Amino acid sequence: MGRWQPGAAQRLQQAALELFDRQGFDGTTAAEIAEAAGLTQRTFFRHFRDKRDVLFFGQEEFVRAFRAGIDAAPAGTAPMDLVAASLASAATFFPDERRPYSRLRQAVIDGNPTLQERERHKLAELATAVAATLRDRGIGEPAATLAAESGATVFDVAFAQWIRPDEHRSLAEVAADVLAELRDLGIAR
Amino acid sequence: MGRWQPGAAQRLQQAALELFDRQGFDGTTAAEIAEAAGLTQRTFFRHFRDKRDVLFFGQEEFVRAFRAGIDAAPAGTAPMDLVAASLASAATFFPDERRPYSRLRQAVIDGNPTLQERERHKLAELATAVAATLRDRGIGEPAATLAAESGATVFDVAFAQWIRPDEHRSLAEVAADVLAELRDLGIAR
Repeated sequence: MGRWQPGAAQRLQQAALELFDRQGFDGTTAAEIAEAAGLTQRTFFRHFRDKRDVLFFGQEEFVRAFRAGIDAAPAGTAPMDLVAASLASAATFFPDERRPYSRLRQAVIDGNPTLQERERHKLAELATAVAATLRDRGIGEPAATLAAESGATVFDVAFAQWIRPDEHRSLAEVAADVLAELRDLGIAR
Repeated sequence: MGRWQPGAAQRLQQAALELFDRQGFDGTTAAEIAEAAGLTQRTFFRHFRDKRDVLFFGQEEFVRAFRAGIDAAPAGTAPMDLVAASLASAATFFPDERRPYSRLRQAVIDGNPTLQERERHKLAELATAVAATLRDRGIGEPAATLAAESGATVFDVAFAQWIRPDEHRSLAEVAADVLAELRDLGIAR
């Protein structure tokens, strides 16, 4: 076993993003990332399966944040209010100081169709997990899936807005505004 | 130039589905599909790029059906009513006699992660195209994207229901019911 490296995953992530930005995702190797972070390749592979994995690190915690918002809501909360709670909880995962990192990450993903596909897959997994959590609370189908997919869409739209260069509101604020827009659409019969 | 083959694409599609079902997607070649349809490989490749393409044939027409519903709606129609119109129009693309084919196709896709990824990609493209059509009608963002993504979600949920063994309603009816459920969610504050 190697020596414990405090914050090794975070250092590797930061180094990876800088390299991806500078020399492209395809032109960067795990060995270069480890070296730039001042760590060994062995340490790299203790944390990540491959360089793509670096960009999607933390997905489980992210999904957990969504579910935690739902779990904390009182019994009888309406489905879209559970979605609102899950969005508020997930937003805490992206404090303002993470915005520059998120912008850089998005630029890397936008430049690579395979990474975009992976991102879409992750969003689909999120919606599936949230739908299961809603069903656990006794919400039937298709309501659970519709609410969960709506939540994922709101998150996706809000996140894209949050990382825009001219955006200064917190992700929680942006997500609440986008959800309000969706609700306004819903009753605009 | 080969001789014109009436309905060659449809014959190839039907033959492909039967082979995929019987011997798996990975275990089937374009040559076998052509042979089973009584056509040449040359004819196969005049219609499809590869065997995967057979399953996603008609996507452009499908997207066009969505857009046609929006284009036919009178000026000033509210966003979610445009979505309802696009769903009704898209449903005509799937008459009841197509249901056995759609069930078989879905079984093939469900058994193959790469095809699932492709299906998700197609759904994302659909939402992007519908959002653009809504913006052309003067609907702003994020309303256009939220409405388009909601429409894609409703279609996806409705389609999964429509191909269930015990389902006898038309896709138009199922989609209208699922959209009504979404609207009910929207106002359940």
